Amino acid sequence: MNVIVGQSGGPTAVINASLAGVYQAAVKSGAEKVYGMQNGIAGLLEEKLVCLNDIFTDDLKIELLKRTPSSFLGSCRYKLKKAEDSNVEYEKVFALLKKYQIDCFFYIGGNDSMDTILKLSEYGKKIGSSIRFIGVPKTIDNDLMITDHTPGYGSAAKFVATVMKEIIRDAMVYGTNYVTIVEIMGRNAGWLTAASALARGTDCEGVDMICLPEVPFTVEGFIRKVEDMQKKKKSIVIAVSEGVKLPDGRYVCELSNTVQDLDSFGHKKLTGTAHFLSNEVAKFLNTKTRAIELSTLQRCSGHLTSRTDITEAYQVGGAAVLAAINGRSGVAITLDRISDKPYQCKTGVVEIEKIANYEKKIPLEWINDTHTDMLQPFLDYVRPLIQAELPPFYVDGLPYHISNKF
Amino acid sequence: MNVIVGQSGGPTAVINASLAGVYQAAVKSGAEKVYGMQNGIAGLLEEKLVCLNDIFTDDLKIELLKRTPSSFLGSCRYKLKKAEDSNVEYEKVFALLKKYQIDCFFYIGGNDSMDTILKLSEYGKKIGSSIRFIGVPKTIDNDLMITDHTPGYGSAAKFVATVMKEIIRDAMVYGTNYVTIVEIMGRNAGWLTAASALARGTDCEGVDMICLPEVPFTVEGFIRKVEDMQKKKKSIVIAVSEGVKLPDGRYVCELSNTVQDLDSFGHKKLTGTAHFLSNEVAKFLNTKTRAIELSTLQRCSGHLTSRTDITEAYQVGGAAVLAAINGRSGVAITLDRISDKPYQCKTGVVEIEKIANYEKKIPLEWINDTHTDMLQPFLDYVRPLIQAELPPFYVDGLPYHISNKF
Repeated sequence: MNVIVGQSGGPTAVINASLAGVYQAAVKSGAEKVYGMQNGIAGLLEEKLVCLNDIFTDDLKIELLKRTPSSFLGSCRYKLKKAEDSNVEYEKVFALLKKYQIDCFFYIGGNDSMDTILKLSEYGKKIGSSIRFIGVPKTIDNDLMITDHTPGYGSAAKFVATVMKEIIRDAMVYGTNYVTIVEIMGRNAGWLTAASALARGTDCEGVDMICLPEVPFTVEGFIRKVEDMQKKKKSIVIAVSEGVKLPDGRYVCELSNTVQDLDSFGHKKLTGTAHFLSNEVAKFLNTKTRAIELSTLQRCSGHLTSRTDITEAYQVGGAAVLAAINGRSGVAITLDRISDKPYQCKTGVVEIEKIANYEKKIPLEWINDTHTDMLQPFLDYVRPLIQAELPPFYVDGLPYHISNKF
Repeated sequence: MNVIVGQSGGPTAVINASLAGVYQAAVKSGAEKVYGMQNGIAGLLEEKLVCLNDIFTDDLKIELLKRTPSSFLGSCRYKLKKAEDSNVEYEKVFALLKKYQIDCFFYIGGNDSMDTILKLSEYGKKIGSSIRFIGVPKTIDNDLMITDHTPGYGSAAKFVATVMKEIIRDAMVYGTNYVTIVEIMGRNAGWLTAASALARGTDCEGVDMICLPEVPFTVEGFIRKVEDMQKKKKSIVIAVSEGVKLPDGRYVCELSNTVQDLDSFGHKKLTGTAHFLSNEVAKFLNTKTRAIELSTLQRCSGHLTSRTDITEAYQVGGAAVLAAINGRSGVAITLDRISDKPYQCKTGVVEIEKIANYEKKIPLEWINDTHTDMLQPFLDYVRPLIQAELPPFYVDGLPYHISNKF
């Protein structure tokens, strides 16, 4: 048995733990060769493969892989054409899979990547291929359907909550009027922005406002809320999703004059929401302001991960191999929560069409009436996901990563 | 004996370790009361004092203080008028110090804060006061004269080097043309930006260009260099100081159309250098670009500190008390490096006028000829300062901090 595995979409801090899980489970299940696609399906189409057996030569390398952030194999944002429009790419992929005698195909990614698994498994079925196609969930956005949560989210949530605590401390030192607006990733789902609610505790007042794409947003309403809050408290820290939207559906950042791009999936490139809002607040209120974009730091912070998240990322990799061995194809692995207290989670398997191209948003009943804060059910949901730490290997004062020169 | 201690200027991740050092050394030296100024000298002028003996009631609280980022006592950016122009503030300060029967006055801060120590000690001398005034160095900028380095720099340098490694990994995943420009703090001295050179190692190619305020910068030259680099390598990551300057002395960020402010010391508020350069690169070269501002995260990242730095921050606090006990006044504590390999450092004492209001810049012979990289002497200098880790206390998945509600 030979298998192939790829990583797709935006990187996370724990995406390589899933790769480690796939690799180790495949080897234990008797796989002779485990190939890695360089840059996902786009790389496969160019026959850019590496033989992982030659790279992961001992257990320490695997452990180092688990603690190395960002897609080890490289990534892509590549959408296969519909097979009914053109089957050129499909023929090429299946010819290559035949050439390398691949039995199982694993793809670690978010909802766009699950679309790749859906299309390939359907095409395979059509041509009578026995190759099994399995999706392994990953995304800091936590926006996949069916699964309780996605690997990658817990570590990103832990990073966001941690730096929010630090930013809140930093912003209050002068005791002056100060509005800090922190922009957090999440195009249409506010899961990661919502995680900033975790900052509140006995040692921290927490963020003062959370703005999510799930609920409509107006600039005037925002400024009014800031003005009201600052009557009671000088330093106001606000977590705002990059994807907050006006009632007419436009992104708030479209109001700014920054150049807009589309990525290859047709998504608008979002940036500048915090800067735009910060300037608006400065214009109308007598306060200093600061815009902070957490940018790529929030998704690749291997130096601050959730051990729960790394463990689960590893588990879904192993579960994907098991599903393939059991003959499943066109499915994705899920994390199914059994209980909240104590937190218990097991892996599951779901048909890929129930996941691909859908987006899971935050339930509105987890958001307070004024659309500024998260309610207890959300905190109960997210708190277990950030538990415990797995530090990187430090060498000479810095986190050491596995070499990705092939 | 009663003592008073304040924190001033921008916060750091380890500024509270110095406060812990002052507090514990003062108590061990027989101080009855250790007062904290809230918001530095500005708070003292409003008699905003706290009695630290009531707060640091056990050893665990002190340890928690050492691992809590950002100025526990609050801070200020307040410049005393010259005594010859007006002695109103001085009379008020000395009246308060008399009221609380203060014998020693400690001020933890950077070069602006040392100006406060200079002025107060000179005024004290003039009026025949026996109160001793001691400066305790702190700044992520590392721009104090005489001292080998400043507490706060090592941890900020470790954070910068760590996230640069992560950003470099993140930026290369798609294998596409990509220019990432990361903006790092440092108004006139590039010490912290230079620390990004530490990212290079056997596991990481490192940053591709480092732009410092110590050497003149032109936008055209910058774009040409990026263009040349991208011929050999697709993903280019550049560390740029917020304070890079054109040959005519203007800050590069002044070329952008963002609103400019002055702080109360008359310094220009710098922001937008990376965004400006990123837009310029996008305009002239066929590449995606991304601007990342490390913003306040780089100075208050208590979740990733250098144990060497925390230890030294604690030591300079203790050394300040010792200097006061020995009758010194109008002095600052320094860190004097005895040897590089093995790294050894001891504390020293220097007259405050040799430090206050000066800025130490990177020696030009530590910068390469093309002004794009750091040479080995800098790496030998900085590497010891980021060694070893002191993790925060984690409670329920997040770093726990000492309460700063008085």
